[in-house]
Amino acid sequence: MPTIRVVLVEPKNEGNVGAVARAMKNFGVADLVLVKPCRLGAEARQRAMRGIAIMEAARIVDDLETALKGADLIVGTSGIDTRSEKRFARISLTPRDFAARVAKMDGRVALVFGREDFGLLDEELRRCDLLTTIPASSDYPILNLSHAVTILLYELLAARAIKHGKREASGMEKEKLHEAFESLLAETDYPAHKRSRTQVMFRRLIGRAVPSKWEFHALMGVIQRATKRIQRLERKD
Amino acid sequence: MPTIRVVLVEPKNEGNVGAVARAMKNFGVADLVLVKPCRLGAEARQRAMRGIAIMEAARIVDDLETALKGADLIVGTSGIDTRSEKRFARISLTPRDFAARVAKMDGRVALVFGREDFGLLDEELRRCDLLTTIPASSDYPILNLSHAVTILLYELLAARAIKHGKREASGMEKEKLHEAFESLLAETDYPAHKRSRTQVMFRRLIGRAVPSKWEFHALMGVIQRATKRIQRLERKD
Repeated sequence: MPTIRVVLVEPKNEGNVGAVARAMKNFGVADLVLVKPCRLGAEARQRAMRGIAIMEAARIVDDLETALKGADLIVGTSGIDTRSEKRFARISLTPRDFAARVAKMDGRVALVFGREDFGLLDEELRRCDLLTTIPASSDYPILNLSHAVTILLYELLAARAIKHGKREASGMEKEKLHEAFESLLAETDYPAHKRSRTQVMFRRLIGRAVPSKWEFHALMGVIQRATKRIQRLERKD
Repeated sequence: MPTIRVVLVEPKNEGNVGAVARAMKNFGVADLVLVKPCRLGAEARQRAMRGIAIMEAARIVDDLETALKGADLIVGTSGIDTRSEKRFARISLTPRDFAARVAKMDGRVALVFGREDFGLLDEELRRCDLLTTIPASSDYPILNLSHAVTILLYELLAARAIKHGKREASGMEKEKLHEAFESLLAETDYPAHKRSRTQVMFRRLIGRAVPSKWEFHALMGVIQRATKRIQRLERKD
């Protein structure tokens, strides 16, 4: 089972932050990071109940990158699922599938939740290794923030029964893999306007596959080998 | 799938009632009954968001019996699970087991939630056909009322198991991808004794990631591009 960090991006309602801290206490999760939050006053403290210590220990940061430091897997939450291939950046797993995959991991998982009104921006979603969307009525699929946190933490606790095995690639290793993939695209003169979405496609694919350290090294080897071979042949040109 | 009724017994916090109405709207449940509730004012309406019509249509009654009229199955929720035979009235199912059973039913199911502080009394629990308890940290297992409602409605919706799938790459397409990967290994002079296991690694990785058709084509493009570039450069040698 990994360590879970909850990241709230620009929460606007202090009551929601308190309710999230309570839900974290209910499900045994302690690491809370707030990106540019609203002011936390009496209502936040009241709603936190016995999660008050979690809220008081929350780290407050200015940007998402700082909030994600040290995370090995970054999971975004999106209120809009899509089957449209054009909106591929928002294709997502159910909370159950997400929990089944993540429960087998070690390391640190950051669960990222967006603003109450706008959710996560596209550029924030692109930073995520995988996305999850809570299935809900198409009539009104937008859950309250603390309700969404509660469902994901509940699913993670429910999935804990499953044993975990192999050692996974760390967040740093995965970033190296993504850099290597980017270099390969560059060396093959991959069309510039398609590069960004192909890199996101690869990030999501790897995010869903949860590679082991061994798989990471093998895949990295293949990609670097292809890149170097092209570079060496070009030098001979 | 049965019709679901949510029954709140003596809720004390109007914000919770609003949040429950919102969660009901999120999960497509409309029948709300309140037993001796607190006054519902501005905060309840604000928290209800687009569930406001559900809250306004709620029936307000004086006792649990009236709230249960017409229900075919009565499900109580309890923050305390027990295996003790002496406390048999509180032995309960997980929300998942509960949802799996209930999803197959027809008729009307009443989900009964107790007071924020005391929950349901023993006599109220005895009135229930089955009980469910949300697994949570033994440190602080008492969830916020609207969080508990959210988890049960979420489990019921998830049990409906609607399988709407994004289009997945076919077996034939995946075989083409593996052939392309094999060609790339060959072109990069990948060590012969490692090829077989690296191909299996790639096959497993793709198997776990379950790529969509679009992802398949994008990945295939990158691999073929690298292979062709090496071939072209080699011809110039």
